[in-house]
Amino acid sequence: MSTLADLSLVEAADAVARREATSAELLAACLARLDAVNPQINATIWVDREAAHEAAAAADKAVQAGARLGRLHGVPLAHKDMYYQAGRPCTCGSAIRRDFVPTVTCTVIERLAAAGAYSFAGLNMAEFAQNPTGHNRAFGDCHNPWSLPYITGGSSSGSGAAVACAATYASLGSDTGGSIRLPASACGVTGIKPTQTRVSRYGVMPLSFSADNVGPLARSARDCARILSVIAGHDPRDPTSAREPVADYEAALDGDLRGLRVGVPTNALVTLADAPVLVAFEAALSVLAARGATIVRLELPLMDAITAYVGVLSRVEAAAIHARWMRERPQDYAVHLSARLYAGYAVPGAYYVEALAQRGPILKRFARDVFGQCDVLASPTIPTCLPTLAETDIDHGPPGTEQKFMAVSVNTRPFNYLGLPTTSQPCGFDPNGLPIGLQLAGRPFAEARVLKLADAYQRDTSWHTLRPPAVVGEAPMVTA
Amino acid sequence: MSTLADLSLVEAADAVARREATSAELLAACLARLDAVNPQINATIWVDREAAHEAAAAADKAVQAGARLGRLHGVPLAHKDMYYQAGRPCTCGSAIRRDFVPTVTCTVIERLAAAGAYSFAGLNMAEFAQNPTGHNRAFGDCHNPWSLPYITGGSSSGSGAAVACAATYASLGSDTGGSIRLPASACGVTGIKPTQTRVSRYGVMPLSFSADNVGPLARSARDCARILSVIAGHDPRDPTSAREPVADYEAALDGDLRGLRVGVPTNALVTLADAPVLVAFEAALSVLAARGATIVRLELPLMDAITAYVGVLSRVEAAAIHARWMRERPQDYAVHLSARLYAGYAVPGAYYVEALAQRGPILKRFARDVFGQCDVLASPTIPTCLPTLAETDIDHGPPGTEQKFMAVSVNTRPFNYLGLPTTSQPCGFDPNGLPIGLQLAGRPFAEARVLKLADAYQRDTSWHTLRPPAVVGEAPMVTA
Repeated sequence: MSTLADLSLVEAADAVARREATSAELLAACLARLDAVNPQINATIWVDREAAHEAAAAADKAVQAGARLGRLHGVPLAHKDMYYQAGRPCTCGSAIRRDFVPTVTCTVIERLAAAGAYSFAGLNMAEFAQNPTGHNRAFGDCHNPWSLPYITGGSSSGSGAAVACAATYASLGSDTGGSIRLPASACGVTGIKPTQTRVSRYGVMPLSFSADNVGPLARSARDCARILSVIAGHDPRDPTSAREPVADYEAALDGDLRGLRVGVPTNALVTLADAPVLVAFEAALSVLAARGATIVRLELPLMDAITAYVGVLSRVEAAAIHARWMRERPQDYAVHLSARLYAGYAVPGAYYVEALAQRGPILKRFARDVFGQCDVLASPTIPTCLPTLAETDIDHGPPGTEQKFMAVSVNTRPFNYLGLPTTSQPCGFDPNGLPIGLQLAGRPFAEARVLKLADAYQRDTSWHTLRPPAVVGEAPMVTA
Repeated sequence: MSTLADLSLVEAADAVARREATSAELLAACLARLDAVNPQINATIWVDREAAHEAAAAADKAVQAGARLGRLHGVPLAHKDMYYQAGRPCTCGSAIRRDFVPTVTCTVIERLAAAGAYSFAGLNMAEFAQNPTGHNRAFGDCHNPWSLPYITGGSSSGSGAAVACAATYASLGSDTGGSIRLPASACGVTGIKPTQTRVSRYGVMPLSFSADNVGPLARSARDCARILSVIAGHDPRDPTSAREPVADYEAALDGDLRGLRVGVPTNALVTLADAPVLVAFEAALSVLAARGATIVRLELPLMDAITAYVGVLSRVEAAAIHARWMRERPQDYAVHLSARLYAGYAVPGAYYVEALAQRGPILKRFARDVFGQCDVLASPTIPTCLPTLAETDIDHGPPGTEQKFMAVSVNTRPFNYLGLPTTSQPCGFDPNGLPIGLQLAGRPFAEARVLKLADAYQRDTSWHTLRPPAVVGEAPMVTA
């Protein structure tokens, strides 16, 4: 049954501003949807109904009082449980932080609050944001709402599942190797990993400061643009955050793709795709071409080095960040996470420095070779048909499970080394009825351009409007 | 015999500006002095007389033409041979770069040139700037002009020796663990390692980007202030260079120490000093006190961690920078340098990240505990009586040589981790007639304050005016 929860984020904010709906009504609709689906999908770690109801009431009071409203006024949201909010839980998906209550609030939550949004839940996630599947030993695995045995993608598993079910209008995820784009792809929603350093990371659980990114998962490119407009920009509390001016991401969504060149790799990313994924991907290219984009086939340079180097950066930095807990509470880490962190201790510092030092030259070469020929680079987000939780359970699975586990993020990781803005949006379903994602990457700080392309695609397709069976109680529609 | 070469840098520049001397005369005096002492001390790797004479002639022509003159107009200089100048040799003290000719010119040389100075020689240095003694297998060891069997200190060995002999008015050195301050101390001249990132490193041979600093060795604090005024400040070509405004370092030299608190460590640096060094050091404190400074005895926090971490940073970064040559030309490295670089490959990346991550918190704690109680921290630059080249020849010496070699830089290295501006100026002689150095460290970007203290000290002492026997042909005067 379609409810207020099925409005898009932009529609929901507009409805409040126009007094067509109250924030209390939006919240009630989201909570009702969450209560209906959560027993199946396990998308939350905590829900704070009382604080949410108070925030909704305050928002509605402000509307009544004729206050000047922010762009997200009265919109209830739920985020990956790694965004610090003073006085509220923040488990980071880990037993170690089960009782952690931050004393500071992260900048992105403050910016969303300044725009009028509030949060009502902490969403499930991979332990310390460190797996691409959504497995979680401490709080239970998150399940894909399109088919429960399947992975949601990780690490922002609850964000992907909850947005897909329209239990929240959007959700902050985080992306160090694909953690926004993978659940967006697997759950059939839209997500954007912005340019490295585009969004402040102050007060956000760190995993790898060289590769971590904050960004939204939402129902559409337009909704992502709205969130990004609110959270992007320099933050004095995060000296690594970029000073580059913030574009008007919503204004850029004009649907006009004439003159835009879409690059398609001939030697990587696409070549890894299973047949059903490839079919959906090529169909998506046709949609873009029909709107005026030119498809350009090209070779990507240095992909092996890029993939190797991003692994060095994230492993070493994660190992450094977790050094104390790994000594003191090794039993509280999942086996696969321990293994990953131990590997980080064994990487020589000189190799880490090399990975950092090569980043600029490699990005320069990549930008010249690739963005000399195209404006946006397209690929499948996850190149294979989606695996199940069982098939990728590397703590208990047979030999070979590791390969399936790592294969999930093979197409997303390179963009964390390159630091490029990259989206994922739904472009079809595989034979098992699980969503397929289209990944679009642009030059540094070209968020407006990749979102424009994603939005144009969504003007001509309906994948992003579909709801999973966990919500509508029926098989997914497979239409173009 | 006193000549034009014995003028200070400031006096030399003033003499040219007032037409009391020509640049050609200054150059001739420096070259004559160099020719007289160099057979004994081996301070140069190359000398370019022709280019220098041309530059001198051009400078003199500009004076004749009434051109507006820079602050160093017509001053001949010679620098450590690691400053890239397009089309001129730059050996970096290594057999590997024996024939290297850069195609770019470093920013600091450009800034000195813009102020009217020119360079006439590349000075001896430790191989790739990586030892604290001045040993060099490829170009021969540099010898201390006060007593030839003794070390000059390194790695800016030729800079220390040539400035001491008044064969150049000043010299750019570089300092990653003491490489400006050690030769300044051992050769009886004045040097300043500025705040980390105060001076551009574009076009300068890198050794450890986290700890490398560019700075001058000169005859006095005032001369250092003049050079620093010319070279300090942000450089777009070195994005790591600080944007902090540059102070007027010369104007700060007012000799007034009233109200200034000089901190003296009770648990480190000073406690390592040999008796003759301690006597000279305490005498220096009395001179500062007599000018109005207050001496404050205090404990330094975290010195073990600071010393360990700076070793991690410099070893790892040096190993990364030298990785290719270490694979391809291992035979072209001195044994002690190979050993140091191999150690760098074995340091885990996570420990390197920890060393970087702890830097801010440790500096904050150090600043609070130390600079809460004093304005400038004083210590001996080298805590022991100066060792000989033979005593510290770790490639050929007996067991125990390593300890003597490492002990040379024990008091200087911590300030590279902390990134603080630190000077060394002569404050006496040890029983062997070798200079003793007084090290002064200040808060970040407090170059003006440490130079003011150093200058005030030199107003009341004559150590910095003495010339070594290699020049005057007699034993050093030991007076207060």
